[in-house]
Amino acid sequence: MSAEAAERRSPGRSFETLRVTPERDHVLHVELHRPEKRNAMNVAFWREMVECFQDISQDTSCRAVVISGAGKIFTAGIDLMEMGSDFLMVEGEDMARKAWNLRRKICEYQETFSVLEKCPKPVIAAVHGACIGAGIDLISACDIRYCTQDAWFQVKEVDIGLAADVGTLQRLPKIMGSQSLVNELAFTARKMMAPEAQSSGLVSRVFADKETLLQGALEVAATIAARSPVAVQGTKVNLIYSRDHPVSEGLRYVATWNMSMLQTEDILKSAQAAMEKKGPEDIPFSKLHCPTWPL
Amino acid sequence: MSAEAAERRSPGRSFETLRVTPERDHVLHVELHRPEKRNAMNVAFWREMVECFQDISQDTSCRAVVISGAGKIFTAGIDLMEMGSDFLMVEGEDMARKAWNLRRKICEYQETFSVLEKCPKPVIAAVHGACIGAGIDLISACDIRYCTQDAWFQVKEVDIGLAADVGTLQRLPKIMGSQSLVNELAFTARKMMAPEAQSSGLVSRVFADKETLLQGALEVAATIAARSPVAVQGTKVNLIYSRDHPVSEGLRYVATWNMSMLQTEDILKSAQAAMEKKGPEDIPFSKLHCPTWPL
Amino acid sequence: MSAEAAERRSPGRSFETLRVTPERDHVLHVELHRPEKRNAMNVAFWREMVECFQDISQDTSCRAVVISGAGKIFTAGIDLMEMGSDFLMVEGEDMARKAWNLRRKICEYQETFSVLEKCPKPVIAAVHGACIGAGIDLISACDIRYCTQDAWFQVKEVDIGLAADVGTLQRLPKIMGSQSLVNELAFTARKMMAPEAQSSGLVSRVFADKETLLQGALEVAATIAARSPVAVQGTKVNLIYSRDHPVSEGLRYVATWNMSMLQTEDILKSAQAAMEKKGPEDIPFSKLHCPTWPL
Amino acid sequence: MSAEAAERRSPGRSFETLRVTPERDHVLHVELHRPEKRNAMNVAFWREMVECFQDISQDTSCRAVVISGAGKIFTAGIDLMEMGSDFLMVEGEDMARKAWNLRRKICEYQETFSVLEKCPKPVIAAVHGACIGAGIDLISACDIRYCTQDAWFQVKEVDIGLAADVGTLQRLPKIMGSQSLVNELAFTARKMMAPEAQSSGLVSRVFADKETLLQGALEVAATIAARSPVAVQGTKVNLIYSRDHPVSEGLRYVATWNMSMLQTEDILKSAQAAMEKKGPEDIPFSKLHCPTWPL
Amino acid sequence: MSAEAAERRSPGRSFETLRVTPERDHVLHVELHRPEKRNAMNVAFWREMVECFQDISQDTSCRAVVISGAGKIFTAGIDLMEMGSDFLMVEGEDMARKAWNLRRKICEYQETFSVLEKCPKPVIAAVHGACIGAGIDLISACDIRYCTQDAWFQVKEVDIGLAADVGTLQRLPKIMGSQSLVNELAFTARKMMAPEAQSSGLVSRVFADKETLLQGALEVAATIAARSPVAVQGTKVNLIYSRDHPVSEGLRYVATWNMSMLQTEDILKSAQAAMEKKGPEDIPFSKLHCPTWPL
Amino acid sequence: MSAEAAERRSPGRSFETLRVTPERDHVLHVELHRPEKRNAMNVAFWREMVECFQDISQDTSCRAVVISGAGKIFTAGIDLMEMGSDFLMVEGEDMARKAWNLRRKICEYQETFSVLEKCPKPVIAAVHGACIGAGIDLISACDIRYCTQDAWFQVKEVDIGLAADVGTLQRLPKIMGSQSLVNELAFTARKMMAPEAQSSGLVSRVFADKETLLQGALEVAATIAARSPVAVQGTKVNLIYSRDHPVSEGLRYVATWNMSMLQTEDILKSAQAAMEKKGPEDIPFSKLHCPTWPL
Repeated sequence: MSAEAAERRSPGRSFETLRVTPERDHVLHVELHRPEKRNAMNVAFWREMVECFQDISQDTSCRAVVISGAGKIFTAGIDLMEMGSDFLMVEGEDMARKAWNLRRKICEYQETFSVLEKCPKPVIAAVHGACIGAGIDLISACDIRYCTQDAWFQVKEVDIGLAADVGTLQRLPKIMGSQSLVNELAFTARKMMAPEAQSSGLVSRVFADKETLLQGALEVAATIAARSPVAVQGTKVNLIYSRDHPVSEGLRYVATWNMSMLQTEDILKSAQAAMEKKGPEDIPFSKLHCPTWPL
Repeated sequence: MSAEAAERRSPGRSFETLRVTPERDHVLHVELHRPEKRNAMNVAFWREMVECFQDISQDTSCRAVVISGAGKIFTAGIDLMEMGSDFLMVEGEDMARKAWNLRRKICEYQETFSVLEKCPKPVIAAVHGACIGAGIDLISACDIRYCTQDAWFQVKEVDIGLAADVGTLQRLPKIMGSQSLVNELAFTARKMMAPEAQSSGLVSRVFADKETLLQGALEVAATIAARSPVAVQGTKVNLIYSRDHPVSEGLRYVATWNMSMLQTEDILKSAQAAMEKKGPEDIPFSKLHCPTWPL
Repeated sequence: MSAEAAERRSPGRSFETLRVTPERDHVLHVELHRPEKRNAMNVAFWREMVECFQDISQDTSCRAVVISGAGKIFTAGIDLMEMGSDFLMVEGEDMARKAWNLRRKICEYQETFSVLEKCPKPVIAAVHGACIGAGIDLISACDIRYCTQDAWFQVKEVDIGLAADVGTLQRLPKIMGSQSLVNELAFTARKMMAPEAQSSGLVSRVFADKETLLQGALEVAATIAARSPVAVQGTKVNLIYSRDHPVSEGLRYVATWNMSMLQTEDILKSAQAAMEKKGPEDIPFSKLHCPTWPL
Repeated sequence: MSAEAAERRSPGRSFETLRVTPERDHVLHVELHRPEKRNAMNVAFWREMVECFQDISQDTSCRAVVISGAGKIFTAGIDLMEMGSDFLMVEGEDMARKAWNLRRKICEYQETFSVLEKCPKPVIAAVHGACIGAGIDLISACDIRYCTQDAWFQVKEVDIGLAADVGTLQRLPKIMGSQSLVNELAFTARKMMAPEAQSSGLVSRVFADKETLLQGALEVAATIAARSPVAVQGTKVNLIYSRDHPVSEGLRYVATWNMSMLQTEDILKSAQAAMEKKGPEDIPFSKLHCPTWPL
Repeated sequence: MSAEAAERRSPGRSFETLRVTPERDHVLHVELHRPEKRNAMNVAFWREMVECFQDISQDTSCRAVVISGAGKIFTAGIDLMEMGSDFLMVEGEDMARKAWNLRRKICEYQETFSVLEKCPKPVIAAVHGACIGAGIDLISACDIRYCTQDAWFQVKEVDIGLAADVGTLQRLPKIMGSQSLVNELAFTARKMMAPEAQSSGLVSRVFADKETLLQGALEVAATIAARSPVAVQGTKVNLIYSRDHPVSEGLRYVATWNMSMLQTEDILKSAQAAMEKKGPEDIPFSKLHCPTWPL
Repeated sequence: MSAEAAERRSPGRSFETLRVTPERDHVLHVELHRPEKRNAMNVAFWREMVECFQDISQDTSCRAVVISGAGKIFTAGIDLMEMGSDFLMVEGEDMARKAWNLRRKICEYQETFSVLEKCPKPVIAAVHGACIGAGIDLISACDIRYCTQDAWFQVKEVDIGLAADVGTLQRLPKIMGSQSLVNELAFTARKMMAPEAQSSGLVSRVFADKETLLQGALEVAATIAARSPVAVQGTKVNLIYSRDHPVSEGLRYVATWNMSMLQTEDILKSAQAAMEKKGPEDIPFSKLHCPTWPL
């Protein structure tokens, strides 16, 4: 699908399980929005997340995203009522064929959260109440994590008989500062409260309640959105590249990346603004047309 | 050696330097057991650790392990009296031949702790008193680390003129949340006390004394052991894989892993138990026959 | 250039932007030394850092380094007045040729800080006041980081329209214990104060003021310098190797490294000293001739 | 899009630039089909290849593919008349924004050929006449390459001022047995005739003319299609994995892959057929539902 | 098991399926020796290969190995009569537990051929008649491959419904000069005759008949065995390392390897012999004690 | 050293062991030039190669290089008379310190040939007579290899008691199409004649004699030099990157590389020339300022 087609389609898009609201300049607020089901992730959700972030990736007016949960908690994780049979009753005429089918589904589910990482705009997760099971997979793929004082987190998968396979086990060890704690959480499915989430580095700020949380997250998003999209999105691309490569490879890649990006007018604009004692907010950066998702 | 042979041999096995005690359901307690020598690691120890965890890997009745030290401290590290000559008087008719011999020994010693990582059952290190030198190598290869308030840790190798070569330098940077601290410890051989061990993520819990430490560690082990061994051991396999690979490779591997593991009956059993408001403790999971060690 | 030639050249070398002072046994103190310009990094600095650490790498009398800033702050980062045009007015007859030129410059700038990592002697950064922009790139490439209570840190690059390309984005995620915080700092350019720097693992100690900071850093440097250079420098080589490789590769490398290094006399000397209740300070280790830089 | 939806859409699909014909059992023949334009690759082609192989990936009745060119030659490569402006007149308000746009286009073009690799069914390229420029990128992504005696090959990109960026430089060195020849072809854009293509391993068979070529390719395709799709497609997955990983990683991956695939009924069916002296052609293998593309 | 114990055990060892004969100086000839079963690989074989090469690895009097087949052909591959049930009737109470058991078996089988690669002494495969199925896995793990004019090779696995999982798919692409041919062989299970095996690089020499083949292989083995074992075995270690790593990593590893190995007396002995116009055959190299297998 | 300084220094540079001659447009001919010593590589050579290719990397008038040997053979390899003591009598007060010194030397020697790979201009090796020992390391680092009918090649290192450590073992397996042959050559030190060198892919053309060899090599160099330096040198950078990375990483890198390089005017110039039926020879490409070596 061409970039133009995608952009055309975007404005009129509405979702069953998500609510997307423009906030301040260049900031979008995405809410998990099945509050009556504690934002449990049903069939529609797994598809809509991909569509939603496909749109956002290409929406040149958006430069930062906050993701939160509507209602009492962030999310209860996968909707086992609706989704359980997906895994319990898989098609296929023998074990091997069932395995191919299961693998396809796992890969699709992984993609639902990997879109957060492939989207070049920074994504801030704002967690209140509880974040359970697949919710951990979701926030692990976000760039920044904040929460409320009463929030708790639970890697739930072992309790239902499986190893987490849509991101938690892959990303958590590279996100948190204590491998011992990561392992403990993954093996025991115990709850972790906000203070431990902060001291272990899972979240980088704790707020008093949901209101101040959202206000804080949106302010940080606005701060990010005010800066050069060439700088910010190039930073995201390279931070993720660096996480997955040796330092020498990371240095080589950013040099190759920046040999074009340093030719941007944003640097001159930023330098001039700085000399005139203006902040980045006052600089009219050009739109950055982002990659057709998936990259 | 066949799996059956190994399992036959296991029950009657006794060790000079280790004491293995069954605790609660599916939990083994392994004690470093040369209290009169501060659990210093002598020739027998390096061999027995391998045999012990070879047995444990294949013991289908064991699902989690706690490792602690008998006596006053966890371990004083390598027994230089008994082992020193191993490195100081190496055989070989020229430098190159000595080097081959040394390399062989280093690899054997590395294996003594890598068995902890290759064992698919989670291993919890419970440290009291002191953990010195090779003790750090040992606990770095465990999955979870707890300690007492009075515990201290010391990367001792530079004090005896060598770079640590059986795991500390390789695993510590991937375990703790401050590379600056890891480096400081490794370059200076200074002691680190329990609070700093916790704030830096080396240990994920601190207990008042040895008794509560063991009680706590065994409870966590029991919590783990109550869950599906397919889920827990698959989680360990994938957490270790993820530590050593980029996120995209980790995702691909777990998809390939789970295309068979999601066909387990443990998921259905767990789901049914959850609907009946039972905990995992009440589910009769089948035995999981583990890989012949070494994998 | 031969090692001998380099060593000859070293003693008489003096720098415009750096001041190098011998401190205690085997310790060098390198000061960023343009205090009237807040130690901003100008053209001379980028070249002199390389020359300075080339000398230090080969200076067999040096075994540990402390790097600090003269005057009120550690460093204000790149000297935009003097350096800005380097990036704003790059030569080349078309975009591609400009890109080659920019890439060359980026690689040269990267090298200015990579020398800290390639130098086999441990380098301790002692930060007071402020550490801004390229200052973060610099300290990220050091082995140990300390700071004063009033120190603050700022990843500044997005504010001037670019993704950081001389080390911050590559090394920070592997140094700190919270990826969420790393991302927040890099996307927002906000200041981080000393306590957060410590709790997140960027620095491993905080001191009351600059004087105690320098005293503390030099003491740790002296502690390191008193130990076997074969042990300490082999430890640095292997810690950096381990950061960038899977554990299994790190183990293989250190085994290959130590098959020669364990044949050092330093082990026997250290063992004998230990038996005689002497500390490493009392052992006369032989000089270790270090690699011609660049390695 | 769900697998079912895709499969529904497939039968009615027709292409402007491709012709897809069922041949023998389970074999599809895909022709590049703009003979009047020497099968030059225009805008429609780049999109249709993706759609076509998306369909084929999911078409459970297809087990092997032959790709050839209609008319006088295999392909003249990219249609510069129609596509040239794509690269010469790229949108974007400054160099950096143009670069983001170009990167997006390159990635899309890369995907056009990567689909051949992501399709789990083996793809045989049957080249007659000439295969130029992007044609080399295309056949490099196929599994097997055959050609006619009069065929020639040309890595054309340097002649139009660019480094090949849709697969040739990435895959050719891993396909052919002489890196010296690969480099020579890429630097000089000279033609390589069929005999050199065979002796260097680019093609594994040479046929007298187009008719025997197609007959030969279809026969091999039929041979492949007669075998267990679980075996054949698992073989493709693992051959590609092995190309890109060390041997030890390749062995670990195939063990994890086969722990489910060896539970297929195809092995028992194959074993029984062998005992009854039947060939694989006579075994009624079940359909293998393939991954929704993109994987 | 200690090195000494292993060496003691070695001389008296005899095998059911292998025959080991000392040939010339420092050369061992290992024959697959079930001629009446076309050297099909039964249960005993899979175990004995490991034991045999464990002995050889530690046998300091052996410096090179030739492996051939007794009777009419090299090997018919796996003994399906005896081994088939191993895969068709795997134990385990559910799919997941069967998968763990299968994975363990696959890993054990992989080890049977990986021992050839882990043995630091060069191994030459001398193939006559036919080399089928697991025979390809075996010779792929050897260092050098020769064959007779009438020899043929067959990657047989797809014919019995599975993807080859003990080395062929992992090693063949890195051994042969035509990926197209590798794929064709693996997908079709067709026979490849000696000339194509040679032109594609699978074998590096073709001999008239079995007698001249063995004579040729043993001569090359003797040539290798006459050279410094430090040089030859270090060469094998580094060739295998290089295959699996980027060039820069290969260079770094060999530098670290040779910093000890260049201190061997073998260099001086070789240099002196060269000045005295003697060949390596005349130099009395010291024994090189090899690593306890597995490394 | 700045790029300008280097370029200034270049014209007046003369070498003891090399002769550099401008040939045709944009082509340099580098001769190994100690014919009376069979171009044996002495102390001066190892340094001069680095200086020579440092100059060439920055010489914007040079776009391709041919390297050949003066006198009767290409090169006899290392000059053991002059260099032998370098390795036989290494300084250092104990084994470990000698090892550090040896490692430094090996790394320096490796660099002597790695410069050929780091130089972005294609380098063609033209081998006549013999190419022995370190000569193989040298040509392995070239991009294209040609030879005369009477040329022979010899991996000589095992004959003097060491594993080749300056490139042969690292690059040869990635250059030639038969791993079996590579291993045989490295283990036996036997001579390989021109026909086998060609059929195995080491060289891609064989010429009747030295005169036609040089003529042929210079013609190919001229063909390369006539093309866009942005295209050719970007091709070299990406071919080497691809050799050392998985295909997916190679694709990502070239997309990042070309997002700037496709903005070159060379594409438009090439397109226009093609429409006017001109060859690349007729296009006045701008100079491409190359990276200061080392990159």
